[in-house]
Amino acid sequence: MMRFELQARFTLSSDITGLKKEFENFIAQTNESILKKGPERLAVIEKYTIEKTILSLFISSEGNLRPHNALLQIKNALSKELGKTHHVGVRGITIEKYTISFDLPREALKEVTIPFADVTIHGKQATMLLTDVSEEFLRGNYIDRMMNRVKEKVENQYYEGKAEFWKLIWKSEEKTPVWEKDPTPEMENLGWLKQGPTKGKWFYRPQAAAILKTMEQIAIQEVLKPLGFQEVIESHIKPFDIWLKTGHMEGMPYEFYYIAEPKTRDAKDWERFIDLTKITKEVPVEELQKNLSAPTAGITYAQCPMIYWSFKGKTIAETSLPVLVFDKTAISARYESGGRHGIERVDEFHRIEPVYIGTREQLLALREKLLERYKHVFNTIFDLEWRMAWVTPWYMQQAGKIGDESTQDTGTIDFEAYMPYRGTRQDSEWLEFQNLSILGDKYISAFNIKAQKSELWSGCSGIGLERWTTAFLAQKGLDPPEGIQFL
Amino acid sequence: MMRFELQARFTLSSDITGLKKEFENFIAQTNESILKKGPERLAVIEKYTIEKTILSLFISSEGNLRPHNALLQIKNALSKELGKTHHVGVRGITIEKYTISFDLPREALKEVTIPFADVTIHGKQATMLLTDVSEEFLRGNYIDRMMNRVKEKVENQYYEGKAEFWKLIWKSEEKTPVWEKDPTPEMENLGWLKQGPTKGKWFYRPQAAAILKTMEQIAIQEVLKPLGFQEVIESHIKPFDIWLKTGHMEGMPYEFYYIAEPKTRDAKDWERFIDLTKITKEVPVEELQKNLSAPTAGITYAQCPMIYWSFKGKTIAETSLPVLVFDKTAISARYESGGRHGIERVDEFHRIEPVYIGTREQLLALREKLLERYKHVFNTIFDLEWRMAWVTPWYMQQAGKIGDESTQDTGTIDFEAYMPYRGTRQDSEWLEFQNLSILGDKYISAFNIKAQKSELWSGCSGIGLERWTTAFLAQKGLDPPEGIQFL
Repeated sequence: MMRFELQARFTLSSDITGLKKEFENFIAQTNESILKKGPERLAVIEKYTIEKTILSLFISSEGNLRPHNALLQIKNALSKELGKTHHVGVRGITIEKYTISFDLPREALKEVTIPFADVTIHGKQATMLLTDVSEEFLRGNYIDRMMNRVKEKVENQYYEGKAEFWKLIWKSEEKTPVWEKDPTPEMENLGWLKQGPTKGKWFYRPQAAAILKTMEQIAIQEVLKPLGFQEVIESHIKPFDIWLKTGHMEGMPYEFYYIAEPKTRDAKDWERFIDLTKITKEVPVEELQKNLSAPTAGITYAQCPMIYWSFKGKTIAETSLPVLVFDKTAISARYESGGRHGIERVDEFHRIEPVYIGTREQLLALREKLLERYKHVFNTIFDLEWRMAWVTPWYMQQAGKIGDESTQDTGTIDFEAYMPYRGTRQDSEWLEFQNLSILGDKYISAFNIKAQKSELWSGCSGIGLERWTTAFLAQKGLDPPEGIQFL
Repeated sequence: MMRFELQARFTLSSDITGLKKEFENFIAQTNESILKKGPERLAVIEKYTIEKTILSLFISSEGNLRPHNALLQIKNALSKELGKTHHVGVRGITIEKYTISFDLPREALKEVTIPFADVTIHGKQATMLLTDVSEEFLRGNYIDRMMNRVKEKVENQYYEGKAEFWKLIWKSEEKTPVWEKDPTPEMENLGWLKQGPTKGKWFYRPQAAAILKTMEQIAIQEVLKPLGFQEVIESHIKPFDIWLKTGHMEGMPYEFYYIAEPKTRDAKDWERFIDLTKITKEVPVEELQKNLSAPTAGITYAQCPMIYWSFKGKTIAETSLPVLVFDKTAISARYESGGRHGIERVDEFHRIEPVYIGTREQLLALREKLLERYKHVFNTIFDLEWRMAWVTPWYMQQAGKIGDESTQDTGTIDFEAYMPYRGTRQDSEWLEFQNLSILGDKYISAFNIKAQKSELWSGCSGIGLERWTTAFLAQKGLDPPEGIQFL
């Protein structure tokens, strides 16, 4: 059940006290025309009053036509009909009160707040009260998104703290680890690695760099090239509009590294900043912030959104399907706050991200081939103890869908490696070192990507070089050659 | 000639009207002890007055001891001598007026302003007047840096608009270009490249990516590996303290892409941001800025500063010299504002930066070997029309040294390619597609890097993949194979 009640006022260009009859007709006619669709009532003007230049309206509806949309239509009709004949125009609209009641899928477990409205909930019934709303606001199509946000917040209350969905698909046999040490501090001690200079970042000296780059070569030579993937190079600077389309902007804004550009490149405008820096040998923070624009972009979170963006609005020839591309250039940054550990949980990491676009059949077949190549790497080359599990990807968690089973068609597979330094294989947390997703048409439709005939799906697979490296080293140990010698 | 005149007031803990004699002694004694070094007068208290709890001092000096430093010493002496005997302590220091006059290397061509002082200039004599200065400020050692900044600004007035130093070292023979087109729009038309998504960034589809990555391979296989360079991987996020050390922070703050981190990663603190984003489908800028910390880092400008940082405070074994490393992972970003063109003048680019640390002799020998390898690539592999010239690097420009001849030992060589699409080889601007520097001990000393015995020098060479690519394509044309077909 939905119920909308809108109390609004039109301020008119002249006193309409003498036009009572005309307005009675206009209201009656509006109730029977604009606010109906055939025999079906969409909304109704239940009451109206006239006082000099003010026409007050009380509009209600069960939701077929939102009263605020009705209001904008009534405004147009009024201008059209009474403007010509009686030179009455609408100067402005004031919404005094807008009450929206709607059913919730379940009872709320606690209060819910959202911007722009007071929300009260009784049982499974929510009511949003809006006061002092602008016409612009009504045009913004916010009302329905506000209702959705309330429902979503109630739904999320049921999933808070619940374990994520996790279902084992496959596991390797047990392998006896060479050692049980944490590879990162061991590499630091050997001088292969150096922490910093900022939180969760590392400097890889030649020995560690060689391992990471070898991982990269293995992924490309043993997985991506044999399957026909081609390299692209994307920008590592992601504008907000791409993240708005993919849902990242609302999904994990607290994990981004944001980017602010100078307001101007004119050295004159930076003279005071330069003076202060030269004199104090410190960065003058206030002066800096005066000179910067508000952020409109962030550093790469994942590479796939920009690959989708590169196909935005395009129609791909059937003969080019499936499209198989990867980026290994854009560097990822995620603000990790407290959870940093070694090179496996960091704020900055290096990933190869293959993206595939094709028909459902093409992608399901590709998944099998990818799994086969990955197994080749992790079993034959790395000799790892690892497993695969279906998990719920973040965007489904966000949508309050934790706990749903992923289908076998779309969904995400996590690749997890046993990390001997963390404890026993039964009781310790394994490391997610890789994933593989088929995402249906989610991003395809977000970026309006089309084929000549086929329905397109897409997917991606995140290959984390730091994760491959630690998974391998945690089980297989280090065998240090000579490097640059420090005293 | 330098002249410092400081008018200051000590606020004391009790009325010292009765201690006139003692203070007369103290002042006389101070003039003969602290303010002298052997027979040499360092500074002098020229006048003093006592009024209840206030001791006013007028201190002057010719610069041997800055009066503000003298003041802090007098404060300590006073507390020590009169504190014990008469229980008089210093509650606070007020600087009423501080006048500093000093000679300029040349006459100023126009007015100069700096923070913290009013500057007046007559002929070659500058005077800084400071009023209302805090004790903290005096301790900050700003005064001398302010004097230097005034001198530097006057010096820079003579170089404004002057041409940079440029001296041809070598040029290839003329080569007949295959075409005279601008390669970027041609690649765009063929679908090899796509502009964006933000200003001065590009998305390289497989065809263009293959060219860039081939350039990378050539640089590594034909130049760096044969000379023994080893790869490192550095963070692409540069903290201000590194840029303060290298001088980049004061050198080109208007060219950085700045990075701001979330204040917190707690989703609760971002709830309103997420609500607003979900409801309005726009990023709420004000709410975002509330949730971000002030920037303390920026995206890579050049890779060498962090490589130096990685050796900070280290003593390198003689047997490890010369250290030969390169980074090709960190992506560079420079805010270009108006000057963007094609893929050759962009806000984001991909560079290999070899860095070398060793003795003067090792680096001069290395330069010859690098030049030989580069010539091999540009002459034999690319068959380019190009030239080399000594130029003035930015940090010398900053220091007001434009126009000075670089020595043959330290300095920067620019590699420039003829770009047929820009016009004739005589009248058009050639593209700087590479450089090579030997920097003496500039960064070595900034980061306190040492060897067991040897004096260390360092240098670097920026290999711009986009620049190599356009230099090559502008002379040699495109030969398009089939790619992903768009309709």
